[in-house]
Amino acid sequence: MTTLIRGGLVIGPVSAQHLDVLIDGERIVALLAPGDTSLAADLASSVEEVIDATGKYVVPGGVDAHTHMELPFGGTFASDTFETGTRAAAHGGTTTIVDFAVQRAGERVQDGLAAWHEKARGNCAIDYAFHQIIGGVDEESLKAMDELVSEGITSFKLFMAYPGVFYSDDGQILRAMQTAAGNGSMIMMHAENGTAIDVLVAQALARGETSPRYHGLTRPWETEEEATHRAIMLARITGAPLYIVHMSAKQAVETLAAARGEGWNVFGETCPQYLYLSLEEQLSAPGFEGAKWVCSTPLRARQEGHQDELWRYLRTGDLSVVSTDHCPFCFKEQKELGVGDFSKIPNGIGSVEHRMDLLYQGVVDGRISLTRWVEICCTTPARMFGLHPKKGEIVPGADADVVIYDPQARTHISVETHHMNMDHSAWEGYEIAGGVDTVLSRGRVIVQKGDYLGSAGHGQFLRRGLSSYLT
Amino acid sequence: MTTLIRGGLVIGPVSAQHLDVLIDGERIVALLAPGDTSLAADLASSVEEVIDATGKYVVPGGVDAHTHMELPFGGTFASDTFETGTRAAAHGGTTTIVDFAVQRAGERVQDGLAAWHEKARGNCAIDYAFHQIIGGVDEESLKAMDELVSEGITSFKLFMAYPGVFYSDDGQILRAMQTAAGNGSMIMMHAENGTAIDVLVAQALARGETSPRYHGLTRPWETEEEATHRAIMLARITGAPLYIVHMSAKQAVETLAAARGEGWNVFGETCPQYLYLSLEEQLSAPGFEGAKWVCSTPLRARQEGHQDELWRYLRTGDLSVVSTDHCPFCFKEQKELGVGDFSKIPNGIGSVEHRMDLLYQGVVDGRISLTRWVEICCTTPARMFGLHPKKGEIVPGADADVVIYDPQARTHISVETHHMNMDHSAWEGYEIAGGVDTVLSRGRVIVQKGDYLGSAGHGQFLRRGLSSYLT
Amino acid sequence: MTTLIRGGLVIGPVSAQHLDVLIDGERIVALLAPGDTSLAADLASSVEEVIDATGKYVVPGGVDAHTHMELPFGGTFASDTFETGTRAAAHGGTTTIVDFAVQRAGERVQDGLAAWHEKARGNCAIDYAFHQIIGGVDEESLKAMDELVSEGITSFKLFMAYPGVFYSDDGQILRAMQTAAGNGSMIMMHAENGTAIDVLVAQALARGETSPRYHGLTRPWETEEEATHRAIMLARITGAPLYIVHMSAKQAVETLAAARGEGWNVFGETCPQYLYLSLEEQLSAPGFEGAKWVCSTPLRARQEGHQDELWRYLRTGDLSVVSTDHCPFCFKEQKELGVGDFSKIPNGIGSVEHRMDLLYQGVVDGRISLTRWVEICCTTPARMFGLHPKKGEIVPGADADVVIYDPQARTHISVETHHMNMDHSAWEGYEIAGGVDTVLSRGRVIVQKGDYLGSAGHGQFLRRGLSSYLT
Amino acid sequence: MTTLIRGGLVIGPVSAQHLDVLIDGERIVALLAPGDTSLAADLASSVEEVIDATGKYVVPGGVDAHTHMELPFGGTFASDTFETGTRAAAHGGTTTIVDFAVQRAGERVQDGLAAWHEKARGNCAIDYAFHQIIGGVDEESLKAMDELVSEGITSFKLFMAYPGVFYSDDGQILRAMQTAAGNGSMIMMHAENGTAIDVLVAQALARGETSPRYHGLTRPWETEEEATHRAIMLARITGAPLYIVHMSAKQAVETLAAARGEGWNVFGETCPQYLYLSLEEQLSAPGFEGAKWVCSTPLRARQEGHQDELWRYLRTGDLSVVSTDHCPFCFKEQKELGVGDFSKIPNGIGSVEHRMDLLYQGVVDGRISLTRWVEICCTTPARMFGLHPKKGEIVPGADADVVIYDPQARTHISVETHHMNMDHSAWEGYEIAGGVDTVLSRGRVIVQKGDYLGSAGHGQFLRRGLSSYLT
Repeated sequence: MTTLIRGGLVIGPVSAQHLDVLIDGERIVALLAPGDTSLAADLASSVEEVIDATGKYVVPGGVDAHTHMELPFGGTFASDTFETGTRAAAHGGTTTIVDFAVQRAGERVQDGLAAWHEKARGNCAIDYAFHQIIGGVDEESLKAMDELVSEGITSFKLFMAYPGVFYSDDGQILRAMQTAAGNGSMIMMHAENGTAIDVLVAQALARGETSPRYHGLTRPWETEEEATHRAIMLARITGAPLYIVHMSAKQAVETLAAARGEGWNVFGETCPQYLYLSLEEQLSAPGFEGAKWVCSTPLRARQEGHQDELWRYLRTGDLSVVSTDHCPFCFKEQKELGVGDFSKIPNGIGSVEHRMDLLYQGVVDGRISLTRWVEICCTTPARMFGLHPKKGEIVPGADADVVIYDPQARTHISVETHHMNMDHSAWEGYEIAGGVDTVLSRGRVIVQKGDYLGSAGHGQFLRRGLSSYLT
Repeated sequence: MTTLIRGGLVIGPVSAQHLDVLIDGERIVALLAPGDTSLAADLASSVEEVIDATGKYVVPGGVDAHTHMELPFGGTFASDTFETGTRAAAHGGTTTIVDFAVQRAGERVQDGLAAWHEKARGNCAIDYAFHQIIGGVDEESLKAMDELVSEGITSFKLFMAYPGVFYSDDGQILRAMQTAAGNGSMIMMHAENGTAIDVLVAQALARGETSPRYHGLTRPWETEEEATHRAIMLARITGAPLYIVHMSAKQAVETLAAARGEGWNVFGETCPQYLYLSLEEQLSAPGFEGAKWVCSTPLRARQEGHQDELWRYLRTGDLSVVSTDHCPFCFKEQKELGVGDFSKIPNGIGSVEHRMDLLYQGVVDGRISLTRWVEICCTTPARMFGLHPKKGEIVPGADADVVIYDPQARTHISVETHHMNMDHSAWEGYEIAGGVDTVLSRGRVIVQKGDYLGSAGHGQFLRRGLSSYLT
Repeated sequence: MTTLIRGGLVIGPVSAQHLDVLIDGERIVALLAPGDTSLAADLASSVEEVIDATGKYVVPGGVDAHTHMELPFGGTFASDTFETGTRAAAHGGTTTIVDFAVQRAGERVQDGLAAWHEKARGNCAIDYAFHQIIGGVDEESLKAMDELVSEGITSFKLFMAYPGVFYSDDGQILRAMQTAAGNGSMIMMHAENGTAIDVLVAQALARGETSPRYHGLTRPWETEEEATHRAIMLARITGAPLYIVHMSAKQAVETLAAARGEGWNVFGETCPQYLYLSLEEQLSAPGFEGAKWVCSTPLRARQEGHQDELWRYLRTGDLSVVSTDHCPFCFKEQKELGVGDFSKIPNGIGSVEHRMDLLYQGVVDGRISLTRWVEICCTTPARMFGLHPKKGEIVPGADADVVIYDPQARTHISVETHHMNMDHSAWEGYEIAGGVDTVLSRGRVIVQKGDYLGSAGHGQFLRRGLSSYLT
Repeated sequence: MTTLIRGGLVIGPVSAQHLDVLIDGERIVALLAPGDTSLAADLASSVEEVIDATGKYVVPGGVDAHTHMELPFGGTFASDTFETGTRAAAHGGTTTIVDFAVQRAGERVQDGLAAWHEKARGNCAIDYAFHQIIGGVDEESLKAMDELVSEGITSFKLFMAYPGVFYSDDGQILRAMQTAAGNGSMIMMHAENGTAIDVLVAQALARGETSPRYHGLTRPWETEEEATHRAIMLARITGAPLYIVHMSAKQAVETLAAARGEGWNVFGETCPQYLYLSLEEQLSAPGFEGAKWVCSTPLRARQEGHQDELWRYLRTGDLSVVSTDHCPFCFKEQKELGVGDFSKIPNGIGSVEHRMDLLYQGVVDGRISLTRWVEICCTTPARMFGLHPKKGEIVPGADADVVIYDPQARTHISVETHHMNMDHSAWEGYEIAGGVDTVLSRGRVIVQKGDYLGSAGHGQFLRRGLSSYLT
């Protein structure tokens, strides 16, 4: 089937132009200058379906490079399955997710990956790929890294936090980085000094400081900046490319920016929650309410200016990507595991459905440009993780993952209307000046005016190549 | 007429993709996924001409944002006319130049501009636009700035060097910047502390240090870094956007990079000569030979590492554009005016023909990526100076300025073969691993396999909009 | 005559120790460990006079390296003569001033110096020395610099502010710095971009912004930081030592600190007014009241944090000296010259009497240590300007300029009680937890419990050597 | 007994002055202006002994804040006992050492301290004090820290290197720092990332890279800079003062300097070996010869410029102290333990005898001033570790630890003539333009013209107070 998306403003990472987009089957096959050129007119006349995008934006489907569907954490599981989570993503204009397969110390990496394939296969509304968490760096898991690269898993996440769970010591990090430097894959890092944090947490609990707010206070920015700096130094020793996930402290990004200024292959991701929410307002909500916003790295104090600085670093390019770190837990029975002990609250916020909207709000607020919106939400994550040009840009030859976004719409976020499997919303009451109109995944309309027209199993596994940024 | 450029690797500022480019008349009208889709096949079958670009790069026509055709300087004139200079540019894959109209203290700005229109009209092989030099900031010239913006002259160059000639003092700069901040235009700055330099020059001459090498030694990097910093501070006071031309000192770019990291609208340009040539090797050539490389800012010492650092800043993005500062003077009778007194040597190097090649060599040498090559030579200059999307990118709707570049070719630079009106080449003996194959300007093939098929007067004046970078 | 100051805590730039100080005639001849050693006992028994300093601090007489007695400015004269000004200084524990002789363009430097000798000779209560202002850099004044060094004038002040009055352009600065680099003298710099400021002032007045507050707003921190940076770069080109006077903007000191960190001989001075007073509180006082605090550089906004940062830089050592820039004008008839036009307000604040007290308050407030108090008020200014070891430290062989300071006293500052020839006080109502008890100048008690026992003419001219900091 | 040291130039941390020094018993009791004042003359006439220091420097006895006598390391012991080591120190003008008592994980801190008292008591030629190594941070050792402060042990050394031996993890470091912040003691840090280094060492050995040179190559500067930064961040979290020992990488000092510029209580020490010796010249000596220079942190590459930068940081004050890290091992049987495996070479260089000379050479070479020599070798270490004013400065009331240093002498360093218990010298063949003439310890001449006149047991244990730098 052929489809022509006509009359819209096509937004790419560099420029926005009025172009018509021709789709044939699952791929974009042409970009056309609008108007009355005879060739274009001929062509348009022969297409089977025309979508009128006049007055709307035509953007690449969103690529969320950081989700955790069904993640086991602290004795429970993230509440979205691949089915519910990817459907919610589709509603929000995201057409690709990269989720994290898990290996723990003592387990085979391949087994962890296989389990994740099992969870996702046949269930996804949109295309998906995997990063691999290496929770136990040893001879065998290092060998597995090489093997996975050939299977399209080209990024590996390590943890400087969570001693005893996913934690790697500096020697293990060094070895994994050496392996990545060898096979061209990307090291992703959860950069917090978990060894120091665990002492601060134990001391706080011993003092009776048990409410959610102390989750933030026991993870001061110094612990994030320190780990970020350490990861960069280890990356420099080994030559490995490095991507720091979910950055929230301005000082950590400043350290990253300095290394980038010297030309190192180090990259930073932040998440919508760090751009909008804060320690004072959300995490310190009365009673146990703040548990909704317990995630790591934590929300930072607005009075210290982190939020404004993160927006600035998105503008200057020192932060490359906005992902969600989507890791949903219900309040009832899940977040509540931490009543009386913040350290037992499952860490995570659910936002997979709202990323494109929340960042578009940044455009409306004058924080970022339209092209930068597309770049940080679509193009750069695709390029960063070896999915480009198949994903992330509207260009002939690419998969026809396209979002028609209506700047005249309004989006109201609420647990009443969202599609994620959560009993609350971290964004309850947020209003966005704009909204998703139509979503195509590989040429098929899967969301239209809020109706879901897709199906579980439409989404396919994506074998990824190496990062485009490693030059 | 319709033309299809087929089989090439189309290189944009973000990515390189195999695409076919359809041209109808003067514009690009479609980008097509190659292959056997029936629509594309139909389309290709109906075009009047097909250019086979298999195995070659298809890049946007180069945009050289800094040329000086027929510039009066030190009692003589730059040796290229608009006719000879733009023809040479075309040979080198540059399809747009932005030249500098001149106003001196006491003259009307509009008269200076009119004179430049006169010089260029009917003579150019390729499209052209103008910046305006303001050599005398006063009430009248400030008003003229507003007027010129409406005529498509949206950038104004000031000089912190050349007291008594083009020099503006800090109060004048402040006022011009206030005007630019008000009308959205760009301030371009020759950033050297001319007041200090003139003392150093007079002292050197008094000591009998008269050879070309002393041109460099009397303009130490501190004079460039100082002026760069001063210009940035004045821009911060006024809110004006600022573009520093022909940067050569790594310390000056470091200062620029720091301001950029804080989010200021400040930009840097460098030139091929600062990337390749040096004080020790060229400017210190025996006898009077070094005069060929007298330009300001001067060539810097290689042992201080400027060249490597400039390449690095091109990678990190702190340098945005590479222009030529094309300002050709013959050795005989022109450069020779400075025999016995380096301060009388006309300042300038001619490179308008070689910029695309010299920067492509940076790709071959692993200095920059293919996409960055296109970005700094084509897309960013077009966007910086309000010529995009008409120029600078291969995208439907744009002017069909296209270069087919052959990575298998070799280019030998020599006065014997170049097309610039010069009796020597600053690049004599350089060999580039690659070369221009075919050049189209607004849909017309003007260079093919080294043959010039264009004509004087094909090139049109471009009214420019405001910079895309001012957000 | 011999005097023993007994029982006090002698405070030096490094440490504070209980020592007895033996004075013979005009000099300190011994420091003695207190207690019952027989030798010390013998010695003490033979002295003619014993001053009991038990429970008090014994500090070197203050050295105020920046005063302007009888300075002509804007059609009037600073209101303190050398007689009134030095007597006031004595009351406040300052026993040496370094005042500024003035040369203007077209005048002979030696004539300006002679005039200052004339004003001071026979009138001073305390010892005095001169810096030389060079208001007109030319062949003759440059030669005079060499001559003056041999007469004990080893520092020369230039102005980047006040075009048409004291202003030197960058070429003149460069030449004066070359001369200083040659003869070992110190360049002192008033670092504000006067050329840019004059434009801002004229524009403000044209907008009807005439009140004292606009004096501050038309001299934004960027104009100080810019000039500071420029002065440093010119100093680096020439190798001249550089001392920036009256720094008030934190950004300017940051720039200075960076150069110091690289090992350059660049130094910074601040003044009490910049440590305590602000744009919002004093300069913006209702009506014309703010004129009392019109000085250049201006008081800075407290909300921008300059005051706290200046204290920090005093601690880290990047600010070396606190002087007063004592330049008193009466409110009546003098400050009032600027009613309706802030640019006509004579620039200056009178503090020569209060510096030691105001900085001691910094000790009480935990801002600086006791030893740092002495270092920045006594030892460093003496060393910086070639007066050490004669002045600035309590050490055998030095002049017996000694202040006994009582930490139990309280000092109330008011026009009612101060000794400066001013009809108001910039410090009205300030209370200091401490106070001057006794002041000796060259062995003679000149102030005791607030009574003045000195005499005009006791003070002698000091021929200074080169700075101790130039190593 | 009374002694007068007459005619010398007394050098303090701020200034150098011609003063006579009067000693009564073990203490300095007076400083006297030289010359014919009658009082001074009387005094001099009554002393029992006069030492003529005309033409010589009179400096405080050196304070070496970092020695390891009899340290067990890698199955052997440092070859100097307290008797041989302190006698050698005395020969070199050092009159106080601060050695490191050792506690290992599982041992009682008090037992480790008691063992060190046992080793030293009755054996020392000069006064001595102790730091305490905490090799096992736990509840008990943290309590012991408080107890030791009251016994005059006010500094505690932790290791980020040597996992399994002295290593503390970040949680342990955090807790020890919290304790130090509480009791006012100083945390000393061996800042190298031992976890990463151990991986690099194992990989090098596995590749057959076994010679001493690989000791340096497996400890790249990034591992020192990283640990330095981490230690600073942990210190910022806790508010503990921090002193980084034996810094050798310029990048690490740059990181320290940045924190100091922000006003943090962080300090750096370097050692003579890092100022003079290098990876290329010494550590890469042919065969196994390089083992003589195996120490940690390692000697750094001269071509990277570390040595010059360390001298610069000594000038700017960002490096506060030069100690020796004296840890002597004989080549035979000790260093030789590492033949075929560099990781088995005992780490350490012996320099306790040469520190004052080697740093005086820096004065002669124009690297540092005379006053800075005394400050970094005597005054600052005394002040840093709570020994001032008893030690470190020539001032009445202080212990009469005095060195008469002869700038006309020459010192030749050789195993043939040194007094340390070593079978080689790391400094073999070095010549110093100057030399120790006479050394007094608490008023007693213990070295004169190279003859040792002291005795084991003269040296006393010094209970230290808190650091003078913590304000």
